[in-house]
Amino acid sequence: MAKIKRALVSVFDKSGIVDFAKALQEEFGVEILSTGGTGRILEKNGIKIIKVSKYTNSPEMFDGRVKTLHPRIEGGILMRQELEKDIEDAKSYDVPPIDMVVCNLYPFWDAIKNEENTTKDNLEMIDIGGPTMIRAAAKNYHNVTVIADAMQYNNVLEELRKNNGDTTLETRQRLAQHVFETMSRYDGTIAQYLDNLINPDAKMPEFLYRAYKKVQDCRYGENWDQDAAFYRDMNAKIGIDSFKQIHGKKISFNNFLDIDACVQTLLEFGPDNYVCSIFKHTTPNGVAIDFKTQLEATKHALSCDPLSAFGGIYGFNKTLKEETADFLINDKNMFVEVIIAPDYEENALKILKKKKNMRILTLPNFYNYKEDFYSRPELRSTLGGMLVQDYDTRDVIKEWDVKSKRPVSDSEKYALIFAYKACKWAKSNSAVFAKEYSTGVYTIGIGAGQQSRVHVVKLAAQKAEEFGHDLKDSVMGTDSFFPFPDGLEAAAEVGCKAILNPGGSIRDNLSIEKSDELGISLVFCGKRVFRH
Amino acid sequence: MAKIKRALVSVFDKSGIVDFAKALQEEFGVEILSTGGTGRILEKNGIKIIKVSKYTNSPEMFDGRVKTLHPRIEGGILMRQELEKDIEDAKSYDVPPIDMVVCNLYPFWDAIKNEENTTKDNLEMIDIGGPTMIRAAAKNYHNVTVIADAMQYNNVLEELRKNNGDTTLETRQRLAQHVFETMSRYDGTIAQYLDNLINPDAKMPEFLYRAYKKVQDCRYGENWDQDAAFYRDMNAKIGIDSFKQIHGKKISFNNFLDIDACVQTLLEFGPDNYVCSIFKHTTPNGVAIDFKTQLEATKHALSCDPLSAFGGIYGFNKTLKEETADFLINDKNMFVEVIIAPDYEENALKILKKKKNMRILTLPNFYNYKEDFYSRPELRSTLGGMLVQDYDTRDVIKEWDVKSKRPVSDSEKYALIFAYKACKWAKSNSAVFAKEYSTGVYTIGIGAGQQSRVHVVKLAAQKAEEFGHDLKDSVMGTDSFFPFPDGLEAAAEVGCKAILNPGGSIRDNLSIEKSDELGISLVFCGKRVFRH
Repeated sequence: MAKIKRALVSVFDKSGIVDFAKALQEEFGVEILSTGGTGRILEKNGIKIIKVSKYTNSPEMFDGRVKTLHPRIEGGILMRQELEKDIEDAKSYDVPPIDMVVCNLYPFWDAIKNEENTTKDNLEMIDIGGPTMIRAAAKNYHNVTVIADAMQYNNVLEELRKNNGDTTLETRQRLAQHVFETMSRYDGTIAQYLDNLINPDAKMPEFLYRAYKKVQDCRYGENWDQDAAFYRDMNAKIGIDSFKQIHGKKISFNNFLDIDACVQTLLEFGPDNYVCSIFKHTTPNGVAIDFKTQLEATKHALSCDPLSAFGGIYGFNKTLKEETADFLINDKNMFVEVIIAPDYEENALKILKKKKNMRILTLPNFYNYKEDFYSRPELRSTLGGMLVQDYDTRDVIKEWDVKSKRPVSDSEKYALIFAYKACKWAKSNSAVFAKEYSTGVYTIGIGAGQQSRVHVVKLAAQKAEEFGHDLKDSVMGTDSFFPFPDGLEAAAEVGCKAILNPGGSIRDNLSIEKSDELGISLVFCGKRVFRH
Repeated sequence: MAKIKRALVSVFDKSGIVDFAKALQEEFGVEILSTGGTGRILEKNGIKIIKVSKYTNSPEMFDGRVKTLHPRIEGGILMRQELEKDIEDAKSYDVPPIDMVVCNLYPFWDAIKNEENTTKDNLEMIDIGGPTMIRAAAKNYHNVTVIADAMQYNNVLEELRKNNGDTTLETRQRLAQHVFETMSRYDGTIAQYLDNLINPDAKMPEFLYRAYKKVQDCRYGENWDQDAAFYRDMNAKIGIDSFKQIHGKKISFNNFLDIDACVQTLLEFGPDNYVCSIFKHTTPNGVAIDFKTQLEATKHALSCDPLSAFGGIYGFNKTLKEETADFLINDKNMFVEVIIAPDYEENALKILKKKKNMRILTLPNFYNYKEDFYSRPELRSTLGGMLVQDYDTRDVIKEWDVKSKRPVSDSEKYALIFAYKACKWAKSNSAVFAKEYSTGVYTIGIGAGQQSRVHVVKLAAQKAEEFGHDLKDSVMGTDSFFPFPDGLEAAAEVGCKAILNPGGSIRDNLSIEKSDELGISLVFCGKRVFRH
């Protein structure tokens, strides 16, 4: 390609445009065509421009709805400068080539966020001329450089300086790709907006559009022979990739799954007191809240199932302390795969970094981002399709309906709600036994992923006993239905004194009667917490 | 809006265009503007047209790259016919309004599927004029009717007939929404194509976009208080929504999750012999292959855990037979929530339909669609992001490496592979005990969703014993690592004689030694089958 001789400059976002256009003109002698507002700013800053209306000999019409949509402009962008035939056409119709298009779009996405805007205001922000120019330039990237984002000015300028006033084909191709990416998102946003106007009462839209940018390739997927990568939703402000990795091996696909679940569990338990949550295979392996120290929370979370905690993901809701770090690396039966905390004491970090491979992640004050995290729905693909639901961010207790004659004390209530929150994050069906200790409450048996309501209770109890926990006077939260009282009986048998369940089975009365017969408390909370 | 007086017609896909344009002109006296090829076909069929090049007094340039990109066209489409100011502009610049745009795009998506096409051929198929026209018309849907798909001609004509030659605002809005939907997919496809040119060796693209169309709202999501819906991937030819529901209650969100897993398990086991696969909470509850009858497969699959099978999803790989249907509805301890089969015997269907709520799904010869089903990757959202991996469609046996001194008989090998396939579809960690019977092989204990390798073996064994299965001479497949031989010991203790495992732990030798000590077979297959 010859040097860039002629550029069309017409931008909504004016940032950086003066410096860029000035450099184009002064350093490389580029002729600049420009429209309305952009042209005025450039002229005011001493840049010589040719007005598009003069260049096309055609006025701006309909409040600027039609400015650049003219054969002399679009033809100049679209002509194949390498083809004899196109060069002849260009001569005979007097359509000189345009080598560069600098244009960004009316910000439709911002307009629709402004609640004062009417539908017509928003429709007015659908750009027509801009997309035509940048799509035309992108199609013809063999000849034309297209810049659709002010962030790209510096890189392009640098390349022009290195490259004798020209861009490389690679750069032009990349810029072209960016245009179609942008257009796909722009029009996807408009389609979703109109869908919402058409179906204002729909809880889920008829048309769903998502665009993702790769954050990293994974070495493999869930298994060694699956290709995989992790992406950021381009419309999301924040995500688990916002957690900064400050140390350790690359995050794997299965790590991401566990990190996501672990972070959500931390969000569930909130920033108060000291929480430690250990994950394995996307299910909590042990959780504890301590009112006094992080170290005790960690020891108690670990004690729930120290065998499976090997290679686990450890999440903390507060700045990681030196004594916790000491504990995490000094126990020789311990292997921490990933550690997540809002922050780290300087010495804690020093200690942890002794473990070369341990992945250390941080995101200061991540509780502040909860609303953002949950502002977009949860997606899960099926063969050829997608299941979409909004995140289950509601309080796990919808009502507090004590069904048994035996009442529930305040401290039992606290432990029950704690157990039920842990149960929410364990794969369904799940059952979680919990118990208080001097300065906190912790899980002592977690059963998860079971097909039946009763096996999961037995499994949780059996694991508790195996690791030396006394189930006497424990409490249990379980998300499975109680069509029969067998789950309740299994819990009572091992010493559990209070059970929290969503309720809602048509045979709830059987379980209520049984709770009175066995002298234990039964509470229905009206909220199911399945997770698969 | 006044009646439609002037339509611009310029289509790539010519199907139906003659009849439609003829009706516009003859029934409603619409003036028709048209371009090159479209115009010639219309004229040949006796429709009067005005050539766009004549209308704009501007020639088609650069091989048709520039035809309609002209102020007299775009201005006519974009003008706000209700605004005094725009009407004045229109008069003074002689830009008459265009009330309808009929235009479909160059089929870029088809072009790139043709492997003989060069990059330049493909780029040539990026439409510029068409998108400009339809986007302009869609923006101005208060005034303009835009038809971007030949499928819409009939509906629009019907409305024109009912409505005195006019369309309703609702229809124009819907058509406009369709345009932006189409454009977002069109440009998304181009962006992915260019991404692939830029990064030809990337296993996963830098940019990923997805467009979905709602198939149905769900009553709720995983839980009662979550809004949810099920979508079809607009670029997928086939999906689990292709299974036709022929009877029963509406499919729920959790049903879809189970159906997806159940169908994939049927695909795993293939169309040969008789397979029955029962699912609960996205994990198999019992699976059997019978070489002679479907009924025996069903009975054996059910026997694995008859308690949890209550309310399960039942999948079959062959036409459902009358005797199977009889069995499924006559056992009073049985409650089938969903039944999936490629087809149903007439009498079988009659019998099943007696159960008013039972959801009955069918897709004839669904094994033929396996490649299509798996042609797009698996997606799973995280907070603000997306994990993407290709489906794990590889054979579960990568190598057959018998590590123990005790060899493996052919029939043991068959049962081991069967167990390992079931293990693949159970949530990890999982362990599956299987056993032969006179005419087939079936699971007798499935442990799933466990954080530790040894608990899952104990869990599977315990369930097997609870339901009266004799574990003596059984085989076991498990996807968990064997860093220690405790899982193997737990299996041997209950009578298991052969174990299949991926292998790959640095302490594999401990397990191999232990297998010889205990006199059981140990095979490593080199393929992990995690699923979370």
